[in-house]
Amino acid sequence: MSQNEIESNVVAIEKYLRKIDWIIRKKGREILNDINITDPQFIALQHLVNNQQLTIGELSQKMSLACSTITDLIDRMEKSELVNREKDEQDKRIVRLVVQSKGLEIVQQVLEKRREYLSGKLAGLSDDDKDILLRNLKYLYEAMTDET
Amino acid sequence: MSQNEIESNVVAIEKYLRKIDWIIRKKGREILNDINITDPQFIALQHLVNNQQLTIGELSQKMSLACSTITDLIDRMEKSELVNREKDEQDKRIVRLVVQSKGLEIVQQVLEKRREYLSGKLAGLSDDDKDILLRNLKYLYEAMTDET
Repeated sequence: MSQNEIESNVVAIEKYLRKIDWIIRKKGREILNDINITDPQFIALQHLVNNQQLTIGELSQKMSLACSTITDLIDRMEKSELVNREKDEQDKRIVRLVVQSKGLEIVQQVLEKRREYLSGKLAGLSDDDKDILLRNLKYLYEAMTDET
Repeated sequence: MSQNEIESNVVAIEKYLRKIDWIIRKKGREILNDINITDPQFIALQHLVNNQQLTIGELSQKMSLACSTITDLIDRMEKSELVNREKDEQDKRIVRLVVQSKGLEIVQQVLEKRREYLSGKLAGLSDDDKDILLRNLKYLYEAMTDET
C-alpha cells in the first residue's frame, strides 16, 4: 500500500496518537526528576516489571545496549534499592534481576501521574464523548491484539 | 488528586492509549530488523531529526546515556552513513551531528509502516467513527498543547 492510498484521516489519527502518547510519557516521567532516576534506568525498570526476573543478558537484548552498559545501569539501580541481583532457584549459576518494592512504587507513581494529567486534559470532553473515545480506542486495541 | 477520584473511563483511556502506542511503535520498528539499525540508533536518529544539529553532549543528555556510549553509537551510525559529524559554521571547535539522507529515509519508512499498520486496523471502523475518533484525539492533543 503506498502512502497516497492511506486516507488522510488515518494519517492524522496516527499523528495525534503518536504526539499524544509522547506528551503523556513526558508528563508521567516528570516525577522521575525528583527521585534521582534516569530515563534508561526507568526503561530498564519497566522491562523488569513487564518481564519478570530477566538476566543481564536478556535485559541487554531488550534494550539493545551492551552488557557492560547494562551492568553499570544495574549497579546504580541496585545501590538505589530499585532492583536486586538474585540467584535462580533452579540453577544457582544464573543471576536474575528482581524489582524491589521501591522500583514497583516508582512505576506505579508514573502511571498515576499519567492518569491525573490525562484526566485534567479530558475534563472538557462531555461524558458521551469520553465514552465514544474509549469505545473507539478499545475497538482499535482489540483489532490490534486479535491476531496475536 | 488520588487515584480513586479519577474516573474509570479515564483510567481505561490512558491504558488503551499507552498499549496502542506501544504496539504501533513496535510494528513501525519491525522494518528496522531488515536494515541493521539498533533501537538506540533509531532513537538517536529521531532526536537528531527533531532537534537539528545536536552535539554529542546534547544528544547524550537527551538520551541520558554517557558521552562514551553515545560516541560509540555515533561511530557506528557514521559508518552506516546515517549521520555525519560536521564542524559548526560559526565556531569550528564545535562538532555537530547532521542526519544524512539515508537516516531521514529510515525515519520516513518507519512512519509509513505505522500508517499502513494503523490503516489496516482501523478498516473495520465506519467513516463516521473514524471521524469521531480523529475529532476527539485532536481535541485532546490541542488541550495538551494549549498551555505550552
